[in-house]
Amino acid sequence: MITREILDSVFRAKSVAVVGASNNPDKTGYQVLSNIIDGGFGGEIYPINPKSEEILGIQCYTELRAVPEDIDLAVIIVPAKFVPDVMRQAAEKHAKGAVIISGGFREIGNVELEQEVMQIANDHNIAVIGPNCQGINYTPNSLCATWPLITGLGSMAIIAQSGTIGATMAGWAKDDRIGFTSVVALGNKSGVGEIELMDYFAEDPDTKVIALNVEGVSDGAKFIETAKRTLSQKPVVVLKPGRTAKGAEAAASHTKSIAGSDKIFDAVCRQIGLIRAEGIVEFYDYAKILGMLKKPAGNRLMIITSSGGSGILAADTADDLGIRIEKPSGDIVDALREVLPNQCVLSNPLDLTGDATAQRYHDALEVAIRAENADAILVIFGDPIENAADMIAQFAGKTDKPILAAFLGGGEVEKLETPKINAYGIPVFPTPERAVRALGALLRKK
Amino acid sequence: MITREILDSVFRAKSVAVVGASNNPDKTGYQVLSNIIDGGFGGEIYPINPKSEEILGIQCYTELRAVPEDIDLAVIIVPAKFVPDVMRQAAEKHAKGAVIISGGFREIGNVELEQEVMQIANDHNIAVIGPNCQGINYTPNSLCATWPLITGLGSMAIIAQSGTIGATMAGWAKDDRIGFTSVVALGNKSGVGEIELMDYFAEDPDTKVIALNVEGVSDGAKFIETAKRTLSQKPVVVLKPGRTAKGAEAAASHTKSIAGSDKIFDAVCRQIGLIRAEGIVEFYDYAKILGMLKKPAGNRLMIITSSGGSGILAADTADDLGIRIEKPSGDIVDALREVLPNQCVLSNPLDLTGDATAQRYHDALEVAIRAENADAILVIFGDPIENAADMIAQFAGKTDKPILAAFLGGGEVEKLETPKINAYGIPVFPTPERAVRALGALLRKK
Repeated sequence: MITREILDSVFRAKSVAVVGASNNPDKTGYQVLSNIIDGGFGGEIYPINPKSEEILGIQCYTELRAVPEDIDLAVIIVPAKFVPDVMRQAAEKHAKGAVIISGGFREIGNVELEQEVMQIANDHNIAVIGPNCQGINYTPNSLCATWPLITGLGSMAIIAQSGTIGATMAGWAKDDRIGFTSVVALGNKSGVGEIELMDYFAEDPDTKVIALNVEGVSDGAKFIETAKRTLSQKPVVVLKPGRTAKGAEAAASHTKSIAGSDKIFDAVCRQIGLIRAEGIVEFYDYAKILGMLKKPAGNRLMIITSSGGSGILAADTADDLGIRIEKPSGDIVDALREVLPNQCVLSNPLDLTGDATAQRYHDALEVAIRAENADAILVIFGDPIENAADMIAQFAGKTDKPILAAFLGGGEVEKLETPKINAYGIPVFPTPERAVRALGALLRKK
Repeated sequence: MITREILDSVFRAKSVAVVGASNNPDKTGYQVLSNIIDGGFGGEIYPINPKSEEILGIQCYTELRAVPEDIDLAVIIVPAKFVPDVMRQAAEKHAKGAVIISGGFREIGNVELEQEVMQIANDHNIAVIGPNCQGINYTPNSLCATWPLITGLGSMAIIAQSGTIGATMAGWAKDDRIGFTSVVALGNKSGVGEIELMDYFAEDPDTKVIALNVEGVSDGAKFIETAKRTLSQKPVVVLKPGRTAKGAEAAASHTKSIAGSDKIFDAVCRQIGLIRAEGIVEFYDYAKILGMLKKPAGNRLMIITSSGGSGILAADTADDLGIRIEKPSGDIVDALREVLPNQCVLSNPLDLTGDATAQRYHDALEVAIRAENADAILVIFGDPIENAADMIAQFAGKTDKPILAAFLGGGEVEKLETPKINAYGIPVFPTPERAVRALGALLRKK
């Protein structure tokens, strides 16, 4: 029985053995060890390799059982055939968990070898992540037992059957300065799977949103029950590739997942409130906005832009999704006329035109947040608007209406301001379409 | 009559007057002047402002007619009511072109003022870009008469009704190290419009692909005729927002464009071979791939990946678009087995698994390019694959099959390798879905 306490010992491990650590920078055993070190892990680190006395400046042990203390977590990167023995040694060292990065199990037909490993794990109540997975990254413990090295504390828990999808999400979250609590790569998910992890992160106080990438669901009833319980706590975004015949075929070769009927999965998502993402970009954008904003009171959007063309793109996407764009009332138009120059288009989109400054946005927002026929506000910065972040941040506390942003065509100023806007808690997207689609996901929140 | 020679004098201007240049960094008149200077323009620059003797270290003239020499191009950033007088002075100075950035004309109801300006332009055969536009950027002449400052010689000509959409495209092209020949912001397009510019860039030897953003088309028959002529020379990608009712309404307020029936526009695109983009990301991706790769002989795609999950996303997108994913023949599988380790999945997607190196990709590509049932090859780097760029570049000349790439989940290595891959002439995209959708556009090439 994998309890919350055991998973705590995995994620908040105080000691980690890297079995199959290597001195060769081309090897996964080198990269994982160096990422644990460079990621700033503060606990004990034990590299294990029979051929080395020291790796990356840390004393190396010939085998796991030679480590003088018990360990919390074993990260295993040795060839598959050696894994059962490593697991037995992990049990001797009272390990609570094993992250088995090694491939070569069920996914290439070695079912019995995988069963042998899991038997040992079950006998000793060791939580297994994997096998055939890309490891784990848990930022509250600065434990980057995966690759590449990505850091950045945040509130998004990423559960990813595909290590690459997990790493991509984490990398974007880091660049966006929103960070993440964790990336857990499921791989063959023979031990800990999406069920245990949804339950775990549902209760995790640091986690505000769960991003779940699965290729298949082994126990449908249990999945639905767990998802419902989780959704009563926080939103869950799902990316389940293998939608198409060819995709399902590829999923079957990847982790021997049975994709099942995509239509049924989709219907279940809609029914219980799982927010399904169409692709990896939407997976990220939806998780991002759901972790940052509360659901608007209605579906009426006010668009404020310095770029007429961007406003049209936003309006098109809104119309596609049934998000309403209502013209501002006479009062609001009058108030806008008082503060804005002549060339501005006092409609919705509200076009501040290309010479807009942060001050003009400020003046427009002061009025726009009072519009009664707008439930959410999208601010599009379509030019190099200096101090956009400091300006928009003032409004986050001034209104109950969710404010989101898009920033494009802003050159170096955009690169500077964009992560700052995110860091202030206002989600900003690189295109108007992505911003509006993210709002669409927010409106689907339970 | 705006001839090719006149447009040459605009883009390849040897002297530029900036009328309304300013010493105040918040003003457009400052930004445009400083971008012309910092962009490396090699010709004469004449700032015009009655209140300054010098701006940004350059002698300033009180009015355009005070400039001692004739000028090729006037960039105009004064309030709308002064523009007719500036145009008369430009005529005195035998200007070939005027880029009118100033707004305040037809778009806010000042139709007569715009007519007055155009009358002067027509009387003196001055090519007008705008009014109410974001200027021009022409890299072969290092002439960045717009904002923000974006440089980078390439082969994509961007014709954009929206300055922000143009600047966004140019910024992405710069970051991607593929560059662009030009961005021309159309604005109200009272003088030079998409017709003249398509004709111009159709014949421009530096331009390999035209990216055209329009909100409306004033003369449908002429548009079709010009587009057909252009398409016989090179591919044209079109972004026409205002697809929906709300989008069309926003377009009408923006530039008073009449969007027309979107269905008819769409049908025309399909019929004559204009490749229509769904949004701004596709606009960029399609123009990028069409400027870099030739059309594959057929629609069968081989996917090589280190990430099973990414391979599934690619297969899903391919299936959506009718791109075929055929399993490799026995010969190819045998040859792959000889060079690849045991855990690789010898199918399509060909999964090299997460510990893949550039060498393993190299070995796989040597075999895969011989596969007779693949017309194009998508290489997905789903991990921090060092030297990915130098590896893949070796294959560009080795096969007639177009090779494209996706790079994701690769952390700092990805950031280093991605622009290098593009610079080698192999288009690389940040997600598998974007790569496959771009291939879909390439397959629609005439």
